[in-house]
Amino acid sequence: MRNAAIGFMDSGVGGLTVLREVQRLLPTEKTVYLGDQQRLPYGPRPQSEVLTFTQQIAAFLQRRDQIKLLVLACNTATAAALPTLQQTLAIPVVGVIAPGARAAVQATKTHKIGVIATAGTVKSQAYQRTITAQDPRNTVTSLACPELVQLAEANDLTSPHALQVVAAKLAPLQGTQIDTLVLGCTHFPLLRQVIQRVLGPGVQLIDPGTATANTVTALLDYWNLANSTGQPQPQATYYTTGDVVSFDRAANQWLDTAPVHAQALALDALTQINLEAE
Amino acid sequence: MRNAAIGFMDSGVGGLTVLREVQRLLPTEKTVYLGDQQRLPYGPRPQSEVLTFTQQIAAFLQRRDQIKLLVLACNTATAAALPTLQQTLAIPVVGVIAPGARAAVQATKTHKIGVIATAGTVKSQAYQRTITAQDPRNTVTSLACPELVQLAEANDLTSPHALQVVAAKLAPLQGTQIDTLVLGCTHFPLLRQVIQRVLGPGVQLIDPGTATANTVTALLDYWNLANSTGQPQPQATYYTTGDVVSFDRAANQWLDTAPVHAQALALDALTQINLEAE
Repeated sequence: MRNAAIGFMDSGVGGLTVLREVQRLLPTEKTVYLGDQQRLPYGPRPQSEVLTFTQQIAAFLQRRDQIKLLVLACNTATAAALPTLQQTLAIPVVGVIAPGARAAVQATKTHKIGVIATAGTVKSQAYQRTITAQDPRNTVTSLACPELVQLAEANDLTSPHALQVVAAKLAPLQGTQIDTLVLGCTHFPLLRQVIQRVLGPGVQLIDPGTATANTVTALLDYWNLANSTGQPQPQATYYTTGDVVSFDRAANQWLDTAPVHAQALALDALTQINLEAE
Repeated sequence: MRNAAIGFMDSGVGGLTVLREVQRLLPTEKTVYLGDQQRLPYGPRPQSEVLTFTQQIAAFLQRRDQIKLLVLACNTATAAALPTLQQTLAIPVVGVIAPGARAAVQATKTHKIGVIATAGTVKSQAYQRTITAQDPRNTVTSLACPELVQLAEANDLTSPHALQVVAAKLAPLQGTQIDTLVLGCTHFPLLRQVIQRVLGPGVQLIDPGTATANTVTALLDYWNLANSTGQPQPQATYYTTGDVVSFDRAANQWLDTAPVHAQALALDALTQINLEAE
């Protein structure tokens, strides 16, 4: 069990920013990543549908790769599916929202925190609830920014066009006096540079992926589940339900690891799973 | 349960350095700390005796304060008692060794790590085992430094005498090429300044208290156990089985909180607990 892989799921390639942090902090862990690109974006879908998709992926990764821990490397999936999966799966399941919220709560001084995310995550109010539960002095300004996902997926991360789009989308945050902004979609850390430029140095950007990697480390150590064979740079497996070429291109641009060659996964492998039987 | 206190135990005042980190990271959590000063030092005692003492304190804090999570804020107690307590208590129990080891493993570049600790912790080889299990490329040099505990307890933290004692004790580390040193006794972070001066800027000092506070945060959030009433600077309770005046003096020097007034605890309150009945 200790030498099994850590599983990661996302609707696309955004969750690779979370994977990258775990690979950096835990270089001796085996990883397996599934990007459900054929069904992206998850953001605008009903929560019940996102829950079903996430349960399918969890069941697949448990059967095929016997994962020891599952990371929902997707804010939308975390908001829709985390409590159910934590109750029903026999392995630990970690989402990105609680770690990201906590990092923001620990960083803010003014107790005014911004959150940018997909429409689904904003509508779920998951960050807002978590941040104010962790410390009721906090007030949260949330903003749905689906256009930023498109920039990241197109790998348009630093161009004048990207800057223009980011500045227009973040305009409602001006004057809110936030000192901390949660990058509440896993794509957004890729746009960190332009976001910081738009908001200025007075706003700290929080990457929930970094915080999530710290939580994964703490849980593995607490349960004595960390890999004990200790091979650095061990096996990493990638699946996509979408286009392998575009997945590999994004992964190889964003990750610092050995070249990524994803395996194509027919959507049937997920949709034909009988969740009742799990 | 969420609004119950986090419990801390130590043989004396050293664990206050761990408490301080938790109070800093989680300002809305209630805390209760028990320093077993009448029976210190734990370092030279047999592991079985340290286990019994730790079980007594855990039982006391559960009965008297209904703690929701217990931190063994003492390396000696962690080495002797953590696995047993994790198996027998119904609440999560966190030690300082796994978080401290992990922080060192993530910090080192040369894979040569030093550990300074009490004789008991060094003899247990707990850091050595944990650090090499987390990454077998690491080699560990361990050094028992009980004299440094005495300096800290005497609050002699920066004097020429303190510098001289630290330099003499750490002499065996010269030439070992370590780039990372674990302060493997909770007293040692108080001597950080002189230790850094003796070893020079090329050696990173790891305070397991900071790493432990991060683990406590991750576990509380994972189990949805963080305080939800959100009063900043909430109640902190202190017990000592030793001298209240000297406890308060040390606590008020080391903590940044409201003045500490410890409650005197008769040793009977611990020794008369029937552990069989727990």
